[in-house]
Amino acid sequence: MKAIVVRPPSTGAEITDIEIKPEKLDGLSIKILENGVCGTDREIVKGLMGEAACPPCDRYMVLGHEAIGILEEDGKYLKKGDIVMPVNRRGCGKCLNCLCGRPDFCETGEFIEAGISGMHGFMREKIIDYEEFLVPVPKEIRDIAILAQPLSDLEKSFDEIVSVQRRMIWTCKDGTYNCRKALVVGTGPIGILMGLLLRSNGLMVYMANKREPTEKESKIFQTAGIEYINTEDDFSGVLMSGLRFDLIFEASGGTADIAAKSLKILKNNGVLGIFGFSSTGHAELSSEDLQKLVYRSIAVVGLINGQKPHFQRAMLRLSEWNTIWPEIMKELITKTVNINDKVSVMKVLESKGPGEIKVKITW
Amino acid sequence: MKAIVVRPPSTGAEITDIEIKPEKLDGLSIKILENGVCGTDREIVKGLMGEAACPPCDRYMVLGHEAIGILEEDGKYLKKGDIVMPVNRRGCGKCLNCLCGRPDFCETGEFIEAGISGMHGFMREKIIDYEEFLVPVPKEIRDIAILAQPLSDLEKSFDEIVSVQRRMIWTCKDGTYNCRKALVVGTGPIGILMGLLLRSNGLMVYMANKREPTEKESKIFQTAGIEYINTEDDFSGVLMSGLRFDLIFEASGGTADIAAKSLKILKNNGVLGIFGFSSTGHAELSSEDLQKLVYRSIAVVGLINGQKPHFQRAMLRLSEWNTIWPEIMKELITKTVNINDKVSVMKVLESKGPGEIKVKITW
Amino acid sequence: MKAIVVRPPSTGAEITDIEIKPEKLDGLSIKILENGVCGTDREIVKGLMGEAACPPCDRYMVLGHEAIGILEEDGKYLKKGDIVMPVNRRGCGKCLNCLCGRPDFCETGEFIEAGISGMHGFMREKIIDYEEFLVPVPKEIRDIAILAQPLSDLEKSFDEIVSVQRRMIWTCKDGTYNCRKALVVGTGPIGILMGLLLRSNGLMVYMANKREPTEKESKIFQTAGIEYINTEDDFSGVLMSGLRFDLIFEASGGTADIAAKSLKILKNNGVLGIFGFSSTGHAELSSEDLQKLVYRSIAVVGLINGQKPHFQRAMLRLSEWNTIWPEIMKELITKTVNINDKVSVMKVLESKGPGEIKVKITW
Amino acid sequence: MKAIVVRPPSTGAEITDIEIKPEKLDGLSIKILENGVCGTDREIVKGLMGEAACPPCDRYMVLGHEAIGILEEDGKYLKKGDIVMPVNRRGCGKCLNCLCGRPDFCETGEFIEAGISGMHGFMREKIIDYEEFLVPVPKEIRDIAILAQPLSDLEKSFDEIVSVQRRMIWTCKDGTYNCRKALVVGTGPIGILMGLLLRSNGLMVYMANKREPTEKESKIFQTAGIEYINTEDDFSGVLMSGLRFDLIFEASGGTADIAAKSLKILKNNGVLGIFGFSSTGHAELSSEDLQKLVYRSIAVVGLINGQKPHFQRAMLRLSEWNTIWPEIMKELITKTVNINDKVSVMKVLESKGPGEIKVKITW
Repeated sequence: MKAIVVRPPSTGAEITDIEIKPEKLDGLSIKILENGVCGTDREIVKGLMGEAACPPCDRYMVLGHEAIGILEEDGKYLKKGDIVMPVNRRGCGKCLNCLCGRPDFCETGEFIEAGISGMHGFMREKIIDYEEFLVPVPKEIRDIAILAQPLSDLEKSFDEIVSVQRRMIWTCKDGTYNCRKALVVGTGPIGILMGLLLRSNGLMVYMANKREPTEKESKIFQTAGIEYINTEDDFSGVLMSGLRFDLIFEASGGTADIAAKSLKILKNNGVLGIFGFSSTGHAELSSEDLQKLVYRSIAVVGLINGQKPHFQRAMLRLSEWNTIWPEIMKELITKTVNINDKVSVMKVLESKGPGEIKVKITW
Repeated sequence: MKAIVVRPPSTGAEITDIEIKPEKLDGLSIKILENGVCGTDREIVKGLMGEAACPPCDRYMVLGHEAIGILEEDGKYLKKGDIVMPVNRRGCGKCLNCLCGRPDFCETGEFIEAGISGMHGFMREKIIDYEEFLVPVPKEIRDIAILAQPLSDLEKSFDEIVSVQRRMIWTCKDGTYNCRKALVVGTGPIGILMGLLLRSNGLMVYMANKREPTEKESKIFQTAGIEYINTEDDFSGVLMSGLRFDLIFEASGGTADIAAKSLKILKNNGVLGIFGFSSTGHAELSSEDLQKLVYRSIAVVGLINGQKPHFQRAMLRLSEWNTIWPEIMKELITKTVNINDKVSVMKVLESKGPGEIKVKITW
Repeated sequence: MKAIVVRPPSTGAEITDIEIKPEKLDGLSIKILENGVCGTDREIVKGLMGEAACPPCDRYMVLGHEAIGILEEDGKYLKKGDIVMPVNRRGCGKCLNCLCGRPDFCETGEFIEAGISGMHGFMREKIIDYEEFLVPVPKEIRDIAILAQPLSDLEKSFDEIVSVQRRMIWTCKDGTYNCRKALVVGTGPIGILMGLLLRSNGLMVYMANKREPTEKESKIFQTAGIEYINTEDDFSGVLMSGLRFDLIFEASGGTADIAAKSLKILKNNGVLGIFGFSSTGHAELSSEDLQKLVYRSIAVVGLINGQKPHFQRAMLRLSEWNTIWPEIMKELITKTVNINDKVSVMKVLESKGPGEIKVKITW
Repeated sequence: MKAIVVRPPSTGAEITDIEIKPEKLDGLSIKILENGVCGTDREIVKGLMGEAACPPCDRYMVLGHEAIGILEEDGKYLKKGDIVMPVNRRGCGKCLNCLCGRPDFCETGEFIEAGISGMHGFMREKIIDYEEFLVPVPKEIRDIAILAQPLSDLEKSFDEIVSVQRRMIWTCKDGTYNCRKALVVGTGPIGILMGLLLRSNGLMVYMANKREPTEKESKIFQTAGIEYINTEDDFSGVLMSGLRFDLIFEASGGTADIAAKSLKILKNNGVLGIFGFSSTGHAELSSEDLQKLVYRSIAVVGLINGQKPHFQRAMLRLSEWNTIWPEIMKELITKTVNINDKVSVMKVLESKGPGEIKVKITW
């Protein structure tokens, strides 16, 4: 069958014909409808992702960890014709977190991840998969459902942040999170989805990037009641203004020094959640920075990877947004290319287009 | 202004003209658009609700704890023209739970509750209220938004159940609640909303009533993937079938013996959540029943009253359902009467109509 | 080797010579030093315990789930000569709670329990056991260490109660539990140990029994700052006095109606924790009782069985008490009989002696 | 009365006669018996502590936040003659955490702290204080009870670490923390007490300092089953050995780069808890360090200040250790000086002596 294939650590990708011996004889056959393309895919194609690794015994890996497909046979609960999204990370089978369905907290590091590490991805005509890893897609949101994969990571991230903050009372005088100020650094798909998610959870949200917002971004932020901050000046304006945050979510993958700058604008009891992978720069923390981290009971948390509960929640979150923010939902898929248009597919796999939020490949 | 007024513990209600001295001089003026009618209202009208009490110094109480209205002036965050729902319970101002916005866990018992106890309700032309007690209604769900008040109680109930179950691992092998079986006893609006909420949270849901389901109910259950059990035989069929539950949510307000029967069909580590107020019968627990409660680590929890965080969540839940279950949403408001149609208003306040799910009064 | 053997469901016990084929070839050999006798042992001897069951393929079961012994060989962490206590319940190997070392919350019910169900107990010269089930005994508390087994159940119980109460703010204005009033019903070893444990956790503690306290009890209660209530009048005095509790811990195993009576004297947000197995009577809850359970957000929880973390904590708790309450510790072991004194051993296995708190059998 | 007085930000301390107008007219009078001296006291004396500030309207501050004293009058629960320890931090009276007795999580930063900031300390003949801030000292541990103040900070720290780790399953296959490896950096009183506390909680503990351990330290570590690591080589030996930790507790107050080095030797899901205040150096985190923090779900948490529940727990912890580690307890108070020996008092306030663990001033 046709598939998009990579050979890490080599650069490049190709659309080619492959034959995958059915690893999962008792799995269900799913015809792929769409894939999403994300920054991780591009890093793998560029040969920049250290963790990328072919499945054992294979010399190539099918790319792709964001997909929706249509079931070609009945499962126990799911039926032929159902649209589903496969969960992309699979546990090590050994540690307690993996045994409990939470390989995002795998202790051994021996988990595998579709299209990223040790497991063929979803950019191919068909996959065979077990029902337990398939999440039903409500047909009403099929056009935006591909966003549920990145959104699942953010549902998990917010869960973890709330869990970390249970070390104190973090809800407000009215029992909500409405008094909490969050700053989301970075306005890519992850940043925007996290901004919307935090708004859904009641927080006051600010989003930051090192430039003026695009027209599309402005529209989204205004609709969702999000404030925008241009941080071209490296947060010095924020620092001077006295604006301080209860939560900073780093989603820019920019230079590492954002971590250090963030600590300076966090409130007492604040959290810095790091999601983006900085690949350049370094964070230099002075002893005063560390003293403040202690005095102010600050937590810094690495955030990664949603699992099945978060995929399910993400589907419902998109359904919620479909009602309250239909205008925003229309703006999030900025490009769709068909697998038969090889030139366009290769282009979207190689680099981010201007104004891009999320790009889909259809089959 | 026009209002629906009761005089507990006397029976009866009347639509009359009242003047409420503005208790809250610095509150916002809200023109009431709609009220929902629920079983508690009817119990007050029938003089059966012991807790019902007029506000201090008043000899009557405006009825109504479910309302949406339109803001007539700007607040700090809310704007003139916004549609809002007022939260109905207000804290004692003394205990820690109330200070933290959670009068559902008031320790002193000195909380007040609009239209129920110590505070004028919302069945009147206008209310003056503080912004902190107002929850914005997304305009896209205005027609079903009145359901957010009862739904808030259920969001809180599920929260509490999950919190109680943190005493162990209650999530399944895939990290979700998909393997958990819940039984909702009672198919009134509370029962149906809870059934839908549990489905949204991934559980397998069974609903029970002592009769065959109505056509409307069947349609709702089928759409949401809920199974129905006719318990005319007093659960003896369930008992014999071997079907057992991880969660039983009592929403029937039937005779008290349901509590005792429920214990017999709970699994190890199960929860019996009691929401409905039984007003007749008694539950007789044998020493064997109590032994099982111990051996099986069972919890029985009283569930009451959502607060602002749950109202906010309920609005988003209705938005989610509006996308995935539009056919169900159309079925939930079964009747609308206008305040000027006095005869109909009195009728809906006195008793539940055939096939009724939720009745609204419009202004 | 010599062992105390039962044959459930038959009544009676005998001291006899048995040969147990070494089930655990790679376990460690432990010479038993002491066993504790508890109510469960006596119920098994009397043939009253329904759950009692011989190990598969055996026609008898060695009795005993409370023991300390001395290691006869080196383990990975433990050394020859270390004094240890074996954990008595072992998981099903299937459900998530058992996989996480918490068979107290076994879902399948397929756990086994030494000397009670499906596993030979500890009343024998020697046992072979895995290091993971052995808890080191600090030599300084060897004389009272046998109490760690029942105390482990109570450490677990308090943990679970605190976990259930996380549904709200249950700590006091000073962050402690000092403002919480607890009633412990029953003054057997379980009741007394729970009373002491609750005092250690800061609560105000009342203990109740249907008679005047013995001199020994009075001394213990006074030393630990515990108040005593004579409930010969069936709680009617308490009811009249207005004294109300945040926590009631049922440890009497009396008639089941204590559960119903307890609900009447619980405060808002209160917990009724049931530990004792009532074998007679029944609890009759009126619809008003159930209404209060709902209005007051009350929780009723079945409490059973500490696991290894609780055994470890129990050892340290006894060490703590050894310092602050040495006079109390001296009173808790009320009788010691040697295995060679068959008549006395049979007597303590058959019934509770006057003034007994904990009886030990030495080897 | 006689008192040890400082005038921040000036350097120096003096023993002088002061008159404090009784701020707390309805408080209880307590005659001070002993004070502990800690690094914070010395930093204030050296004028190095930025946060140090006299009480409003005063031009000096009594030093001292570690004290035990004897009650000179009856309180509601406490009696004349009881030995007590005052809690040192007092809340802002405004934020929810302070209202709930947890000024360690004060949001406003307007808390005050005895002998440190905005409140006279305890190094004086007498204090007047409210009963709610007094923690009873078991008479059996009076000689080591002064350690309860620093230990309270560590009880809180471990609580917070466990709370943060509830984001996943952090207990081991036997339900305990026995499989978790902790590294405590720094062997001052805080380091040693934390090492012991972690052992009490079941963890495997390693302690590190940049030199060989003293004889006293070796004895303590051996008794408690703690391993020692000489990190003169700046953790490069650890890095090479492959030894990795689930928890690193920084208690050295050394140069800030320890934070960066610690991240390299943390396991997946690990926590770096920072307690010590680095006053020199800086931590340089590369983008690879930050990537690992994300990939490995690592949390970094600032840890500060125990409150009343932790003081109560610390008293019991010392009682526990008094039983199981009497030899260690004897080693912890390394010097006692009397207030009348001005030269010695000044000396201990100015600098740490050789081999010092904890120094007491008696009155």
